[in-house]
Amino acid sequence: MQPRSEETRTRILRNAVELFAGQGYDATGVAQICEAARVSKGAFYHHFASKQAVFMNLLEDWLRSVSADLKEVLQQAPNVIEGLLSMAGRARTIFSAADGQVSIVLEFWAQARRDPEVWRRAIEPFHVYRQMFSSIVQQGIEEGSLRAVEPELVAQALVSLAVGVIMQAVFDPQAAEWERVMQGTMKLLIDGIGR
Amino acid sequence: MQPRSEETRTRILRNAVELFAGQGYDATGVAQICEAARVSKGAFYHHFASKQAVFMNLLEDWLRSVSADLKEVLQQAPNVIEGLLSMAGRARTIFSAADGQVSIVLEFWAQARRDPEVWRRAIEPFHVYRQMFSSIVQQGIEEGSLRAVEPELVAQALVSLAVGVIMQAVFDPQAAEWERVMQGTMKLLIDGIGR
Repeated sequence: MQPRSEETRTRILRNAVELFAGQGYDATGVAQICEAARVSKGAFYHHFASKQAVFMNLLEDWLRSVSADLKEVLQQAPNVIEGLLSMAGRARTIFSAADGQVSIVLEFWAQARRDPEVWRRAIEPFHVYRQMFSSIVQQGIEEGSLRAVEPELVAQALVSLAVGVIMQAVFDPQAAEWERVMQGTMKLLIDGIGR
Repeated sequence: MQPRSEETRTRILRNAVELFAGQGYDATGVAQICEAARVSKGAFYHHFASKQAVFMNLLEDWLRSVSADLKEVLQQAPNVIEGLLSMAGRARTIFSAADGQVSIVLEFWAQARRDPEVWRRAIEPFHVYRQMFSSIVQQGIEEGSLRAVEPELVAQALVSLAVGVIMQAVFDPQAAEWERVMQGTMKLLIDGIGR
């Protein structure tokens, strides 16, 4: 993609996320996104087939950046258990990137109930993360920093705990210091599987 | 409440949950609920101020029954750690009661974003469960079956893990045996905090 085209795409995404977060996904139209991003409808449809495609791209960009960040943290750690603990320490990055986006994910899931293709893409991230953590745990067992646990089960625990904390942080931000909760609860779980 | 009136209320709730689950909360009107439940609008409004009130009652009835069930399991256990493990074993009850209701909770949360009163009631269950588990963990530390953990943090871990598993079970029922996941992941966490 040419630099200018890439810049247009980024501007559409950035303005769309602001509108979605501010007034809701349903209340936001393509015309309004175009106006806010100062692009023509032609330019919009050159990049995205629909408003939903914009949303999908936002979600996938976010998940890609979180995954890349987590993998980098793991590579810099001396072993898997230290890597998992450092990942939990990245809660700030995950939350700040998620800010204003996860509440849109809810509206999207409500939509997904009626559209199998949207549904497939909505559940895909859960699969990706469960597989990613399952491989990491397997690696930890092989190197000896983790007990002989069941990799798939531990991956499900890590992903479920993260999903649960993120959900509560999004819906009830005042109830706790959620970054501290993410780190502390992950540490409880990870300490339990270490040698 | 008189028996017959109570029976009417129950019939309204039962028919409402079927309609909500089948065609979505938004698509279901009070008139349709009345027709399905074979009650007059007068009888409906005698019991519920609005469709939203019906939904709130469904949610609160479900949460009350889950709490009562968990407390009973705890009372029958010899100590807190065994009680927590038995609670995890009640996943079947929680899931079957949640069936078709949790996806409605999503639409409800999407609504809650725009209404502070709905919001307050939507986040209330998280508070109730965190407090309940915090007291249970405190009790476990006092009786000596749990290590000197931070009760609030453990409660957040238990609630977050449960929320995360339930979310995935609702959105992606085919991906795993979620009852087994609930029990196995809870056991991982609970084993880590026992003496």
